[in-house]
Amino acid sequence: MATPLKLHIDRSSPVPLYHQVVQGIEAAIHGGTLPAGTRLDNEIDLAAQLNLSRPTMRKAMDELVRSGLLVRKRGVGTQVVSSQVRRHLELSSLFDDLTRTGSKPQTEVLSFSHVDADEPTREALQLGTGARVYHFTRLRSVDGKPLALMENSVRDDITDMDESGLAKRGLYEILRTAGVNFRLANQRIGAVTANEYQAKLLGTEVGAALVTMERTAVDDTGRAVETGRHVYRADSYSFEMTLVQR
Amino acid sequence: MATPLKLHIDRSSPVPLYHQVVQGIEAAIHGGTLPAGTRLDNEIDLAAQLNLSRPTMRKAMDELVRSGLLVRKRGVGTQVVSSQVRRHLELSSLFDDLTRTGSKPQTEVLSFSHVDADEPTREALQLGTGARVYHFTRLRSVDGKPLALMENSVRDDITDMDESGLAKRGLYEILRTAGVNFRLANQRIGAVTANEYQAKLLGTEVGAALVTMERTAVDDTGRAVETGRHVYRADSYSFEMTLVQR
Repeated sequence: MATPLKLHIDRSSPVPLYHQVVQGIEAAIHGGTLPAGTRLDNEIDLAAQLNLSRPTMRKAMDELVRSGLLVRKRGVGTQVVSSQVRRHLELSSLFDDLTRTGSKPQTEVLSFSHVDADEPTREALQLGTGARVYHFTRLRSVDGKPLALMENSVRDDITDMDESGLAKRGLYEILRTAGVNFRLANQRIGAVTANEYQAKLLGTEVGAALVTMERTAVDDTGRAVETGRHVYRADSYSFEMTLVQR
Repeated sequence: MATPLKLHIDRSSPVPLYHQVVQGIEAAIHGGTLPAGTRLDNEIDLAAQLNLSRPTMRKAMDELVRSGLLVRKRGVGTQVVSSQVRRHLELSSLFDDLTRTGSKPQTEVLSFSHVDADEPTREALQLGTGARVYHFTRLRSVDGKPLALMENSVRDDITDMDESGLAKRGLYEILRTAGVNFRLANQRIGAVTANEYQAKLLGTEVGAALVTMERTAVDDTGRAVETGRHVYRADSYSFEMTLVQR
């Protein structure tokens, strides 16, 4: 039997009913009340349980399917999707995180070059005019499913880098092996919608939500080692962190 | 005179040229090479400077306008938009952050109720059956521009709360005044696209990128004090943080 839904619906609220249902189901999924794989009743039954109209219930479910939290399977019904990669924020790489949680990350190197650093890169890495960097774009997948499109520039005076190394090992693993001790990273997290290029590579639709991460990492000698901009499918990725008051 | 663009374009890369231009201009804006307000040359001149076709240049510029980094102004040309609210991640509220940076936040309380906590809320706040919470939704604007749509639940055994208090003061300010010393917060950051309700309130389009933040904050007595889910316009908001290796 499917799990009955218990949600608080406030009919006096100006928040539309469908959106209250979306928020309630999101909270139940993120809070663990509805774990991955949970099968929900059909929309007619759910609408009856919550005393809502069927179009309202349908609109809420459509939205949750669109945002990737629920999936409709023929003959099975509507299910909570398998959980997101929840990356705990620390000075590690996606590759490290995935390996630690037992996933098998695959990396496709889409472009690789050893080039003169452009002005924004020189600024981020605090390099002088004429400095050269390794510049590359990688597609990271987990269990065959594309997750992240990653563009990075790395200063070229630390270790020799090549395409085949990047296909086999994570960037931070390569740099750590070369003797880099990372000390801190400045990071910014935001959101965009997927353009054609991103959608095609990430196996999603143009206009789908993507999480963006820009980062510059500095080692214990004070060198800015690498700078990058990554985009992640928002339906399968989020950043988790614990903030502690100092 | 407008600023000439210097970008590294790699014609041997499989990354489409328009997307390389988008990435280069994004990096220049985020890196400070193209500060807010910078006026760019027209597309014909830019295409010539970068030795690109006009449709390629136009596609890149359209995308940067769509993502909110550039704005086209009649009689002025294309400009870098005024900078995002860059919220440095710490145990503070959006209201604190905005006030500190000299902005004038306005808060509209869209809904307010004192209700039985639903199951996900009880779980997040570690409350027993029958516990009641303040549940409210607020729209936060800066200089008249909507920025964040915030839904929160706060345990009701700390201080009396009402709609007018929330319209005047930040949530964390109210709780601190009531004696709460925040100790830590578990936070998750992701992305979604705006639905009708969110788009209307945030003054953006359905399908626009939004940054999402879910948080549960705990005080120095170990109580989970509040839990919430916020969405921010991605074109005017991002989370910044510095990660330090332990």
